Amino acid sequence: MKILIDVMGGDNAPQVPIEAAVKAANELGVNMVLVGDTDIINKELEKYSYPEDKISIAHAPDVISNHEEPAKAVRQKKTASVVVAANMLKNGEGDAMLSMGSTGALLTAGLLIVGRIKGILRPALATTLPTAQGPKLLVDAGANTNCRPANLVQFGIMGDAYMKKLHNINNPKVGLISNGEEEGKGDDLTKKSYGIMKDAPFNFIGNIEGRDIMEGNADVMVCDGFIGNVVLKTVEGMGHVISNRIKDIFKKSIITKIGAVFVMGGLKEFKKSMDYREYGGAPLLGCKKLVLKGHGSSDTKAAFAAIKQAKIFIDTDVNKEIEENLKKINTEETENA
Amino acid sequence: MKILIDVMGGDNAPQVPIEAAVKAANELGVNMVLVGDTDIINKELEKYSYPEDKISIAHAPDVISNHEEPAKAVRQKKTASVVVAANMLKNGEGDAMLSMGSTGALLTAGLLIVGRIKGILRPALATTLPTAQGPKLLVDAGANTNCRPANLVQFGIMGDAYMKKLHNINNPKVGLISNGEEEGKGDDLTKKSYGIMKDAPFNFIGNIEGRDIMEGNADVMVCDGFIGNVVLKTVEGMGHVISNRIKDIFKKSIITKIGAVFVMGGLKEFKKSMDYREYGGAPLLGCKKLVLKGHGSSDTKAAFAAIKQAKIFIDTDVNKEIEENLKKINTEETENA
Repeated sequence: MKILIDVMGGDNAPQVPIEAAVKAANELGVNMVLVGDTDIINKELEKYSYPEDKISIAHAPDVISNHEEPAKAVRQKKTASVVVAANMLKNGEGDAMLSMGSTGALLTAGLLIVGRIKGILRPALATTLPTAQGPKLLVDAGANTNCRPANLVQFGIMGDAYMKKLHNINNPKVGLISNGEEEGKGDDLTKKSYGIMKDAPFNFIGNIEGRDIMEGNADVMVCDGFIGNVVLKTVEGMGHVISNRIKDIFKKSIITKIGAVFVMGGLKEFKKSMDYREYGGAPLLGCKKLVLKGHGSSDTKAAFAAIKQAKIFIDTDVNKEIEENLKKINTEETENA
Repeated sequence: MKILIDVMGGDNAPQVPIEAAVKAANELGVNMVLVGDTDIINKELEKYSYPEDKISIAHAPDVISNHEEPAKAVRQKKTASVVVAANMLKNGEGDAMLSMGSTGALLTAGLLIVGRIKGILRPALATTLPTAQGPKLLVDAGANTNCRPANLVQFGIMGDAYMKKLHNINNPKVGLISNGEEEGKGDDLTKKSYGIMKDAPFNFIGNIEGRDIMEGNADVMVCDGFIGNVVLKTVEGMGHVISNRIKDIFKKSIITKIGAVFVMGGLKEFKKSMDYREYGGAPLLGCKKLVLKGHGSSDTKAAFAAIKQAKIFIDTDVNKEIEENLKKINTEETENA
């Protein structure tokens, strides 16, 4: 197993991805290729001790920033770290790639360079949400706007495989995000998707509503990428607002500061359960090999969690599970939907 | 001014709407008609003292429940409270109606009986969200799935008028909910809507993302009713989950219970700022007269706030503002969009 790590992307590059890789070499024993500027990487690696056979370097002096137009940048910047890593993945020089850089560039590289699993119409970004019933998966969290029902059904198949393998859930509950629970509720897309999902090879529990999302009533929450992006960012934004409000309350006076001491343990535990760093990155499900997006502001803990996640993804062969379940759907019917 | 109150709808009917009406008669001096079963209303009213010329009764012995198919129920149940109130509103026997009953029935009655302002293609449900920057408006919060760009532009016009009049905001910032800030981001609907909104007679600030919603970065947040429903319920669900988690933390031990005492004031203030009861109901904007949906679980405070909101809506003539701004858009271009 070999994991390719784009060490040039993300707010804390290259220190964080390199430190996380060193930690993974020491603790997980996985082989990794650090993709980025060789001089910078070598200088950074000098700080650490690690089994040297576990870490190699692939030179890629260029970076694609968040401000560049992804499709154009991926086509033109042949020596950008994310492009080099994607080409290595395509050419069999690795089993997974991880990047904390531009989401758009990674999605484009995954789609255009790594390519799709045979039969997958569109790969989808899958994000883990910290719900009241533990980590649950939102697919698609933003890769595809303007989906067709056939896409949503495949998002369900991919999410189902992921939650089975990565979170050991036996028969994941797959829900379709809609504006009402009843079968008749929804917009054109969700109404048509509902009809096909009823016969899909996963445990379809029907429509779920917005309030079910953070309650965690489904293990896999399927929606198009437009909705998924809005939901994800609404949840992140609200988390941020509430966290600030709570901080303000505790900081208000000597009295409230004393109160904070009494409940500090519980608040920290709560914060931990809401912490994206615990859950690794967001996979672009449906690519021939794992393309994993780490949070841009990842610290070493989050980046390490993502490497570990990639290892489990490969170990448990999520893609094989996806391929097998794809065969169970009526391809003709689905592709026309 | 006369406000029609459906006293048969909602979880706490008829006690809560009637108590709220009595309070409004005493404190706001508005005239109200209580629409519902005369015997039940009279029996309830006996409990209170109030200026009797302010409250009259319209007999409506029937109720439409949340479990009935709204369109069918509104057509068939001619003596249901919400149908009687809507017909009175249509016939000039009132200036606004308020119901805490079935949302579907109220929307149907508003659309089919009360009717639309001339030029309005589709009325929209507008909900106030408690954001980091105070109350902001989400339009459409669920009345219309499958919208066209012309609908979204009109939602902007209606939301703009509402925030000007009800919240005294001089030049409300109107944002379009999308999956990215740049003009080019969005699905087919939002991309086309963006182009038209740039020339609309309101302060269009462009796309807003999910994270802007609870930050309160726009005064009016425009989206189709499918997205609006999902966003609103995601926010409500997350509020519920976090509130439970915080309660659990404080209840955990004697120590944490002591801590709770120190920060009680701040937490109460926070809870109040997140409390829907402070903000009244959700108007179905675009009807010839105000059709106002109160929260199903409203208590007297929430129902009273809704009556007050109806009074301000009429006093400030929100509908006139909507009509005047409608004239400023290129009707032909918009209606084809």
